[in-house]
Amino acid sequence: MHLLINRSRFKENFDALARIGATGDGGVNRPALSPAHLEARRWFLARAQAAGLETRVDGAGNHSAILPSAAPRSGGSQTRLSLLLGSHTDSVPNGGRFDGALGIVAALEVLLTVKDAGLDRPFALEAIDFTDEEGTLVGLLGSAAVAGGLAAEALNNPRGGRAALAAGMARAGLAAEGVLSARRDPKSIAGYLELHIEQGPRLSRSKIQIGVVTGIVGIQSFRLAFHGRANHAGTTPMEDRADASLGASAFTLAAREKVRRDFPNCVVNVGQMNFEPGAFNIVPGAAELALEFRSPEAGQLAQLQSALLGLAESVANDYGLKVRVEAVGACEPAPMSGRAQAAVAVAAESLGLSHTAMPSGAGHDAQSLAPLTEAGMIFIPSRDGVSHSPKEFSEWQDCVNGANVLLRAALNMA
Amino acid sequence: MHLLINRSRFKENFDALARIGATGDGGVNRPALSPAHLEARRWFLARAQAAGLETRVDGAGNHSAILPSAAPRSGGSQTRLSLLLGSHTDSVPNGGRFDGALGIVAALEVLLTVKDAGLDRPFALEAIDFTDEEGTLVGLLGSAAVAGGLAAEALNNPRGGRAALAAGMARAGLAAEGVLSARRDPKSIAGYLELHIEQGPRLSRSKIQIGVVTGIVGIQSFRLAFHGRANHAGTTPMEDRADASLGASAFTLAAREKVRRDFPNCVVNVGQMNFEPGAFNIVPGAAELALEFRSPEAGQLAQLQSALLGLAESVANDYGLKVRVEAVGACEPAPMSGRAQAAVAVAAESLGLSHTAMPSGAGHDAQSLAPLTEAGMIFIPSRDGVSHSPKEFSEWQDCVNGANVLLRAALNMA
Repeated sequence: MHLLINRSRFKENFDALARIGATGDGGVNRPALSPAHLEARRWFLARAQAAGLETRVDGAGNHSAILPSAAPRSGGSQTRLSLLLGSHTDSVPNGGRFDGALGIVAALEVLLTVKDAGLDRPFALEAIDFTDEEGTLVGLLGSAAVAGGLAAEALNNPRGGRAALAAGMARAGLAAEGVLSARRDPKSIAGYLELHIEQGPRLSRSKIQIGVVTGIVGIQSFRLAFHGRANHAGTTPMEDRADASLGASAFTLAAREKVRRDFPNCVVNVGQMNFEPGAFNIVPGAAELALEFRSPEAGQLAQLQSALLGLAESVANDYGLKVRVEAVGACEPAPMSGRAQAAVAVAAESLGLSHTAMPSGAGHDAQSLAPLTEAGMIFIPSRDGVSHSPKEFSEWQDCVNGANVLLRAALNMA
Repeated sequence: MHLLINRSRFKENFDALARIGATGDGGVNRPALSPAHLEARRWFLARAQAAGLETRVDGAGNHSAILPSAAPRSGGSQTRLSLLLGSHTDSVPNGGRFDGALGIVAALEVLLTVKDAGLDRPFALEAIDFTDEEGTLVGLLGSAAVAGGLAAEALNNPRGGRAALAAGMARAGLAAEGVLSARRDPKSIAGYLELHIEQGPRLSRSKIQIGVVTGIVGIQSFRLAFHGRANHAGTTPMEDRADASLGASAFTLAAREKVRRDFPNCVVNVGQMNFEPGAFNIVPGAAELALEFRSPEAGQLAQLQSALLGLAESVANDYGLKVRVEAVGACEPAPMSGRAQAAVAVAAESLGLSHTAMPSGAGHDAQSLAPLTEAGMIFIPSRDGVSHSPKEFSEWQDCVNGANVLLRAALNMA
């Protein structure tokens, strides 16, 4: 079986989608449920319908193009078995034209290629554009709704604010009840595959064509506050200070060393620091920092948490400070299924593409689907690892490679 | 000569002044030229007049009580030679009742004691309450005006804002021309002495009764900005980051070590830090910090500046960052005169008080006077070094000791 996607049709569709919300600098501005985003979704449905595919929009606003299977429905029930090929058409504000969009255009192209070849499979192929992956409103909204993992609370306290969510939902004709009832029966889903740009430099640096994603990292975030004594910075001798800046600084350096030495496949970040009272001439009495760390494996994420919070305690002791720890957010790692990884690796092999197993350091809709079904992801190289920027770029041959791997991996899942 | 101040009168006056603007928690709220501050100044003049002293208010609002000398005016001119005994009655917002006020009440008490004793000297004794020492409006306003060191610019861009300065000056009946012409002829000034609480822990910690101030530290402040690359904190491997937080953190720790090792009589402070863009999930692309350092000696202050800015460069190199340096403010060290220091030390000896030579880490009106005349300062212990707080406290016996040292040092200056 030597099926390949249609290069020129794929390019035409990619360029057509990239024109919607284009910012003129190579990027697109399609925040979730904005007019530009809704226009992109209308284009997607129209393109699918024009090619003779079925279409569907669910209660969470997820837009699907469907190539049915001739096979009888599973167990004679009404439930159709579908292999989902997903990603998203929304972007961060002033984002790039590859993030999400590549996966949607490639999924559509896979359906069209299989349809043209008249190839039947034991499941329908469904290209699905999930609502609000990027989190302008909630984050992974559509995929979490499909997985049944969306709580009413997420709609009540959206990270983008209630007003923005309400306006977006009104624009898209969505209602909370619809969003919360978009869950699909796991038995109806044959698996999930997603093609995405890496958004990191590993593939482009190592000149490897395909990343076989092993899992999506889990994330923990904490606010750490070191407490000492605010004092006059002129009259207080150095040796009499309980200077909170020293705890925050020593922790920042030591956390990095700890991760590089003991957790080489993990990352840690101190993204912000703030001292109180915060004047040139006052020894900081408190220093608060924003800590985040990621691991692809749940047990390791817990070990990393314990190592870093222990480090904060020991650094505080070293400098005569106290430390207060506040958990801010947590997201479990989502391992990709072994079968999906194998399907992707075999597909890359069959195309003569170099490939490597790698975790995803960023979040994706695949993490919503992973607890539900056999989920897998395909990465292609991102130039310089740049993403969420108009400068985001992938070579077109890499995009074609990715779409062909998606095509063959989907068929391998059969 | 075994003259001593009148303990009970001194206490009565101290308590009377502490009631003006009292905040009920032991502190006072007398920001410069506020109604409470002006009431304190009226009390001071009235108290001096009631005791038969001359009084004077100059164009900068400085309030003086004067005990004239019977000696002929210097060189037969109209110029009266005066030994100034100064400090200030203004406080920081919600400050303590000792800072400044102690020096004013003690200066008044010295004049009264010398008057009662009928002791003549070759110069007038002048207790002077300088305007806005604390800098609610400008900082060292009155003493800089007397020294001729006040530029019109300082009135145009006051740290407390133009509106607050204009309102205060209107309340006090002051005009810019008056303030800028309050300079006094250095030949008319025999010297300057100031009694003040230490505002640091050295004397109370070492149980020494009197500090003979060797000089007031100079201060340099800089804004340092380390620049790296903002990046996705999930997809960017640790070894690929140019993380500005590391430069700021390493500098903060290394600056402290450098000062403790190579500049043991100096202090350094990193009072604030800010990262850009400043999110949990973005590697900081820039980290700005507020740096201040102090030395009692001009040459050493320059060496310290060169050492710390060099350290910033070398730390930036270590982490693949650039560093930008912006000078924010500078204040030269003000050495106290040897003759004034000797007068204070001999006075303490004559009273059987333990004493030690020490720099002042905080700024005082004495630094304005130092370039003009032989200036000296006397410190007494501050409990726990606390100041600029209602918790500021000095034992009453230490206050009495300080006033007696001021009395005898003033007579020693003759």
